[in-house]
Amino acid sequence: MPETHPVPALPERLLLGPGPSNVPERVRRAQGAPMIGHLDPAFLAVLEEAKAALAELFGTRNRFTLPLSATGSAGMEACLVNLLEPGDRVVVGVHGVFGSRMCEVARRAGADVTAVEAPFGQALDPDAMREAIRAIKPRAVAFVHAETSTGVLQPVEEIAAAACDADALVILDCVTSLGGVSVALDEWGIDAAYSGTQKCLSCPPGLSPVSFSERALERVRARSHPVQSWYLDVTLLDGYYATGKRVYHHTAPISAILGLAEGLRIVLEEGLDARAQRHREAAGRLIAELEPLGFEPLVAEALRLPPLTTLRLPRAVTSRGEADVRARLLLHHGIEVGGGLGPLAGSIWRVGLMGENAHPECVDRLVTALREELT
Amino acid sequence: MPETHPVPALPERLLLGPGPSNVPERVRRAQGAPMIGHLDPAFLAVLEEAKAALAELFGTRNRFTLPLSATGSAGMEACLVNLLEPGDRVVVGVHGVFGSRMCEVARRAGADVTAVEAPFGQALDPDAMREAIRAIKPRAVAFVHAETSTGVLQPVEEIAAAACDADALVILDCVTSLGGVSVALDEWGIDAAYSGTQKCLSCPPGLSPVSFSERALERVRARSHPVQSWYLDVTLLDGYYATGKRVYHHTAPISAILGLAEGLRIVLEEGLDARAQRHREAAGRLIAELEPLGFEPLVAEALRLPPLTTLRLPRAVTSRGEADVRARLLLHHGIEVGGGLGPLAGSIWRVGLMGENAHPECVDRLVTALREELT
Repeated sequence: MPETHPVPALPERLLLGPGPSNVPERVRRAQGAPMIGHLDPAFLAVLEEAKAALAELFGTRNRFTLPLSATGSAGMEACLVNLLEPGDRVVVGVHGVFGSRMCEVARRAGADVTAVEAPFGQALDPDAMREAIRAIKPRAVAFVHAETSTGVLQPVEEIAAAACDADALVILDCVTSLGGVSVALDEWGIDAAYSGTQKCLSCPPGLSPVSFSERALERVRARSHPVQSWYLDVTLLDGYYATGKRVYHHTAPISAILGLAEGLRIVLEEGLDARAQRHREAAGRLIAELEPLGFEPLVAEALRLPPLTTLRLPRAVTSRGEADVRARLLLHHGIEVGGGLGPLAGSIWRVGLMGENAHPECVDRLVTALREELT
Repeated sequence: MPETHPVPALPERLLLGPGPSNVPERVRRAQGAPMIGHLDPAFLAVLEEAKAALAELFGTRNRFTLPLSATGSAGMEACLVNLLEPGDRVVVGVHGVFGSRMCEVARRAGADVTAVEAPFGQALDPDAMREAIRAIKPRAVAFVHAETSTGVLQPVEEIAAAACDADALVILDCVTSLGGVSVALDEWGIDAAYSGTQKCLSCPPGLSPVSFSERALERVRARSHPVQSWYLDVTLLDGYYATGKRVYHHTAPISAILGLAEGLRIVLEEGLDARAQRHREAAGRLIAELEPLGFEPLVAEALRLPPLTTLRLPRAVTSRGEADVRARLLLHHGIEVGGGLGPLAGSIWRVGLMGENAHPECVDRLVTALREELT
């Protein structure tokens, strides 16, 4: 088709907020490929490649590992509504906005929710989680690996082991960890996990990588009530996505999956260890550069989530109005950073150095712009 | 970024199945634009434009008209789970696979479902619907405008009027009508409708345009149980999408919305009447060309859905194995056509001439390929 109509010019942004991150040209071109059918053998080959790559990133041999046709929030809902039946008890670790969201989603599924809270900016206390698990004997334990609202990287193993001892299923939110931080579902004993594509994978938002263990799938098959969501029912999704079945369920988001497959190729070409190291180095540089300007990390060093750094704001920012400074960064420098969520709104910034953006040049562009705005 | 890695070559296909349809270069380039934040003013301007265009296509002034962040099947689920509470009675017209799906989704929402059936390939009987509505006094009446499984274009007004007389909400599936056939939600008195992007809009699959009337939104606000799905809760979505609110809910699929906005520009540049006429002409040509080869339209002329034609197969096809002939069309000629769904599997084909593909050249390519295969 001849080019008769220009694409409306969108401004170029350096996306250093909590997501989306910038999307590399390779991914953008892959998702712009000519359309192809969702059951076409050529598309199915790419889908299978993406499923295998996701399993590698999740550190799992779970057969049911695939990109769900909706965003990360739907991935959370899929894990909870498939594994919980009305009346089931669930222990949820809450140390940020996304833990609270898990509670809300689980309640809507009819579950009996026990929240074990930790202050925003700190990790969950494994002893408190273990006690709750022992006392409540829940069907499932759910918590967040990488709290996008606080920048805490939650240690997983102790809590997962406590859940395992109580024969509970473990659900893990990996939205801001997958592809930027080591994830090891099988080693940790996780039964269901979900992520997003617009964080450390540097793909557009719109898909949620999810993984369910065989034990989790068995639980779904053994339910006495049907899963409340037809769209998110993993048994139906398994019929559609499993190699050799391909029972029509919905029409997969073909372009987005082509883009994701390319994004995953980029991740695996770099290697997961090198990628995690690059994220750590970028976050280290960010903090080293911003501390002299008066920014203070919210999170203790051992618990920091490299892809997303949370910073208490210096007077130089708050006196100018933190939202105004962010707006100036966006409109005058083309740089997006995130404000705080929930109780941290107004008092912190969230700076994402995720995927493509975990590079020293991104840090330096932000620091230069900030120096200009604040001095 | 320098081009160091070729995009895996996918074969070029002419997509004449039930969706996706081919996506024009303009849409593919728009969705490949550099990433931008979901709350960036520049993105929000495009989102607002897309919302306004969708309202025009739906024939509605509904403020709540937007692209839901999942495929058309999730749009169906959103309409049903928001408007139905456990125990609510609903009358569903079933004259194809998607009517049956509505029943299943409504049952999972705890609704008391009455299905009023018509044979696949025929329209719903408005008298039967009216009788059921009078007898049952349902909370809602749901049916399919354009049955993608049968190729029937269902007359809407009589059934909608009967629902209105009984003070029931009306839910309409417009997946294969929006953008290819006239849709007039306000004139017909429809309270909630959903569609898909990969049919007559010629955009990739992944979003579901939905529209809720104020009366429907009031019903949701008056519920005694929370909506079972947090992800699809229209009250939360309204907070995120309504101009001036923008309360964070999830991260919208930015690239897909940029593509959709461009696709909608193309639709409105052509004009809805001209576009509907083009779809009628293409379907007319298809039938005129295929009848001499022994294909017989499944649907009576007055009820045919121009974007999707269903055809009983001649012996020349069945004797070769209909699935084998479709596979040969795909692999040797690069043309996808759809097989039958449900009880029509094996006995019909579904040929989509939707959006970009409602052109005589597409018909002619298919006819030429078929002649070659069948003679």
